[in-house]
Amino acid sequence: MPHSPEEKKRVLARVRRIRGQAEALERALEAGADCAPVLQQIAAIRGAVNGLMSEVMEAHIRETFGQAAGSADQRQARVAEVTALVRSYLK
Amino acid sequence: MPHSPEEKKRVLARVRRIRGQAEALERALEAGADCAPVLQQIAAIRGAVNGLMSEVMEAHIRETFGQAAGSADQRQARVAEVTALVRSYLK
Amino acid sequence: MPHSPEEKKRVLARVRRIRGQAEALERALEAGADCAPVLQQIAAIRGAVNGLMSEVMEAHIRETFGQAAGSADQRQARVAEVTALVRSYLK
Amino acid sequence: MPHSPEEKKRVLARVRRIRGQAEALERALEAGADCAPVLQQIAAIRGAVNGLMSEVMEAHIRETFGQAAGSADQRQARVAEVTALVRSYLK
Repeated sequence: MPHSPEEKKRVLARVRRIRGQAEALERALEAGADCAPVLQQIAAIRGAVNGLMSEVMEAHIRETFGQAAGSADQRQARVAEVTALVRSYLK
Repeated sequence: MPHSPEEKKRVLARVRRIRGQAEALERALEAGADCAPVLQQIAAIRGAVNGLMSEVMEAHIRETFGQAAGSADQRQARVAEVTALVRSYLK
Repeated sequence: MPHSPEEKKRVLARVRRIRGQAEALERALEAGADCAPVLQQIAAIRGAVNGLMSEVMEAHIRETFGQAAGSADQRQARVAEVTALVRSYLK
Repeated sequence: MPHSPEEKKRVLARVRRIRGQAEALERALEAGADCAPVLQQIAAIRGAVNGLMSEVMEAHIRETFGQAAGSADQRQARVAEVTALVRSYLK
């Protein structure tokens, strides 16, 4: 998950960028960088992680609700699953 | 929105609690309270606001996807609307 | 805290604005407002609460470190107190 | 920055852990992991990034205010610098 090739590619590109940002931060710290630019790099990573979380959640919603449910029970189960995820990660 | 009487009641109770917390904070500041407990009160309000946002988003997902869509187009429009909200408020 | 009259005034103005935003949100919910503008109002409150937390923390840092410490022990105690607050509320 | 060997070591260990978490997430996504555990991994990274930001900020406060300022001007400049960082990253 996410299962469509384009979404998987997009999410993987985001994760690799975050890994690259962590590596750049590691090098900056090893080189004794100043506090202000280090905090800026950390804030950029934080923004990228939030963007990744949103992208994965959006992909999940598209996959979950993109096809009609087979029954009312299945529909309710899907709603319960997605609202639980929103509750866990939006708070 | 949210439209079910129980959800509306629950959301309104949360908003009134936040208003009450803001009033208590105002009194504490007027009385010259110390910084540490003031920050604690502010953090409690922040938590309550996040909980409220999650509750409203969950109610919206329940209402949007709780009934079968009338057509594939309507289904896609619902998915697009909810993912846009998640993107705006999860990031 | 904060103790200077200007800072106290500024912080109180922020708290009153938050209270006003909560009241406006309560009215919108009672009037049955749509989900999207309601979430926007909640996000605005969240931004205002974060701004308030920052303002109080900044005022506390100004007050704590604005005057020279009387001793090395007092200096270390001040540093320990402020870093503990940053740890609690930045995470 | 941070300059003490212990703090530098601690901060670097946190950054390397974040890099490792990003690598594990990359592998999970390549292996087609489910959405719920993927979101959990992302939330863990978010927590680790927030912890890192707090650690760097605390180290900076310790270094900035751990020694007496040489003059009132220097003291005020330090306070202005740290409050600006708090404002940028607490909000």
